[in-house]
Amino acid sequence: MRRIITLLTDFGLRDHFVAEMKGVILSINPNVEIVDISHDVEKFNVVQGAFLLVCAYKWFPKSTIHVVVVDPGVGTERKSIVIKTKNYYFVGPDNGVLSASAIKDGVEEIYEIEVRETSKVSTTFHGRDIFAPTAAYISLGKDLSSLGRKIDRFIILDLFKVSTFKGAIKGAVIHVDSFGNVITSIEREHLGKVNINYGDALEVLIGNVNVNVKLLPAYGYVKPGELLAIVNSEGFLEIAANMSDAASRLGVRVGDEVIVRKI
Amino acid sequence: MRRIITLLTDFGLRDHFVAEMKGVILSINPNVEIVDISHDVEKFNVVQGAFLLVCAYKWFPKSTIHVVVVDPGVGTERKSIVIKTKNYYFVGPDNGVLSASAIKDGVEEIYEIEVRETSKVSTTFHGRDIFAPTAAYISLGKDLSSLGRKIDRFIILDLFKVSTFKGAIKGAVIHVDSFGNVITSIEREHLGKVNINYGDALEVLIGNVNVNVKLLPAYGYVKPGELLAIVNSEGFLEIAANMSDAASRLGVRVGDEVIVRKI
Amino acid sequence: MRRIITLLTDFGLRDHFVAEMKGVILSINPNVEIVDISHDVEKFNVVQGAFLLVCAYKWFPKSTIHVVVVDPGVGTERKSIVIKTKNYYFVGPDNGVLSASAIKDGVEEIYEIEVRETSKVSTTFHGRDIFAPTAAYISLGKDLSSLGRKIDRFIILDLFKVSTFKGAIKGAVIHVDSFGNVITSIEREHLGKVNINYGDALEVLIGNVNVNVKLLPAYGYVKPGELLAIVNSEGFLEIAANMSDAASRLGVRVGDEVIVRKI
Repeated sequence: MRRIITLLTDFGLRDHFVAEMKGVILSINPNVEIVDISHDVEKFNVVQGAFLLVCAYKWFPKSTIHVVVVDPGVGTERKSIVIKTKNYYFVGPDNGVLSASAIKDGVEEIYEIEVRETSKVSTTFHGRDIFAPTAAYISLGKDLSSLGRKIDRFIILDLFKVSTFKGAIKGAVIHVDSFGNVITSIEREHLGKVNINYGDALEVLIGNVNVNVKLLPAYGYVKPGELLAIVNSEGFLEIAANMSDAASRLGVRVGDEVIVRKI
Repeated sequence: MRRIITLLTDFGLRDHFVAEMKGVILSINPNVEIVDISHDVEKFNVVQGAFLLVCAYKWFPKSTIHVVVVDPGVGTERKSIVIKTKNYYFVGPDNGVLSASAIKDGVEEIYEIEVRETSKVSTTFHGRDIFAPTAAYISLGKDLSSLGRKIDRFIILDLFKVSTFKGAIKGAVIHVDSFGNVITSIEREHLGKVNINYGDALEVLIGNVNVNVKLLPAYGYVKPGELLAIVNSEGFLEIAANMSDAASRLGVRVGDEVIVRKI
Repeated sequence: MRRIITLLTDFGLRDHFVAEMKGVILSINPNVEIVDISHDVEKFNVVQGAFLLVCAYKWFPKSTIHVVVVDPGVGTERKSIVIKTKNYYFVGPDNGVLSASAIKDGVEEIYEIEVRETSKVSTTFHGRDIFAPTAAYISLGKDLSSLGRKIDRFIILDLFKVSTFKGAIKGAVIHVDSFGNVITSIEREHLGKVNINYGDALEVLIGNVNVNVKLLPAYGYVKPGELLAIVNSEGFLEIAANMSDAASRLGVRVGDEVIVRKI
């Protein structure tokens, strides 16, 4: 059974960084399959990295090893960790980028990666020198306890703050995708709590803008260019425009507050 | 023999969409090889998607499964189809994006994909929920008739309208590549019809611009920055500038009319 | 043992070019593993291509075949070559793009690729028609002498001109990465020659700007936004700013002269 290693970084694809990680992995385990999740995380944006991971990780086969390198603290004292969960392995810096996914899947064991041959490890590129080889050794079946010291906690990043009050839901914009769709931290179950259903008209306060939209099942339910609300394929409430860039039109940015209520 | 699945979408590589398709495919068939054709089709541009497919599909081994998701109608009533041709399988929405390639290769059978477990299918991401698993099951050798209902037609997109009159050829700009080369719908055989050969001087009316260029065998036949006409590696007439961006200089856009005559 | 072919081009990922190369390779050897180094080399920038290759090549397993297509002279009389080195194969145009890497790894044999079926070879896309099949045949173990004629030299591009004088080192900016880090041609051993060590304060004249920075082991040693000098993970001296774009701030461009001295 061929093992899979996924890579999620803010390195971009223009430089040599991602290729070097792949070369290191294939030098250790030539039979592993490497899949890119994304390398276009905004530089140092740990929250966006965590969001993309929490969307993508669960679509891969059991035992997939997910490597994430969004790492503003590289070369300082932040730990390098492996989290074994119910179905997966997560490898990356201990800065919270792995936490939402690991917790959702069910944390089983946590290890701090021990760096033995420090002479070979650069201080600026742990993706290649620590995380890639760690993932490759896991893909070979190497015991986690041989890679480092068992620890009992990791840094948790609270991505998805959502609260409900007086029939309204308050959340935040957590991502704008390449279509210009505005993804909020509000999930399907929050809509249920305040009794919002398909077909309902909603008042949405987002950033400094107030819009009225209907919650509909697919983009094509409105005319090209028209706004709508949708529960996207990951279960998050999205403010979108059919075949058009809602984020630009509304002037919305990641981090903006979102308040939704039925009208 | 390892099967190949190619992916051609307008999803971009910044988001989690393409990775989720790959995860779904590898969960069903861990031994398949996935190759990206492009994920940077202009959003919802079915014509550009069809053009990139018609260039690329034929360079892959027989039995390759080509998945195309440029799908403005996702979640509405457009069909999801599989076309089996002489050498390949094409999987995607029935909006014409597959048609030029399927017809060129020779259509053998057409199936409408039947969606059985609708509870698991999102209304916004059929790439992941319908097309990726369909391709993965085909790669496992699953019978097409088990995936859906045989049908007898699909929507045809007429990409390549070309006509000749009084020694001139009329076509259109169908693509501008990342070098700024202007690819037209005029093919090698059209040039033959009006007796245009290498070395001939041509008058080209393109958009609102009139240029005189020579038809030459390679970019390096003119000085850097100079315009020329070339029959490109796919057999299409191209207006280009050696090591320079012809499209920007001429202000040409996809869809512009092109008229070519010998002078 | 699965063989690896890497691809490094200036084709971008938007068009069909890279996919066609992969299709051709997999049609000849379906069991090879293809890894992208980068396809975002600046168009026709042979120096940048050579730099990315010299960083990345050595991280891949022995016997990896590196294909480079940054090829302003395609279709003219420049040769197509294969260089067998101590550990690798390099395939590409004879324009210097392969030379720094091949020399570093130790040149063993050089072949000029002989093009037999000229009718099948386009004049604009040797990446697909010559370099991809050559690499695929090498990955099948085909003898190099069957692919072409042994020759005894190739064009050498002198990437890394560095000189020391009166305690100063003079080099040039050879790359700006996607983080905005400014990579210079000055390597770790040059710093040793003028006795520069971690913790030293440096005066750096770069382009038209004069800055004072400390040589430090990791970006995180200075506050976000602050400039520093660092020996990067490839051994090159880099002028960077912690979590910030040094190149934009300093107005530095590839090719600018760099002079460094201890203060």
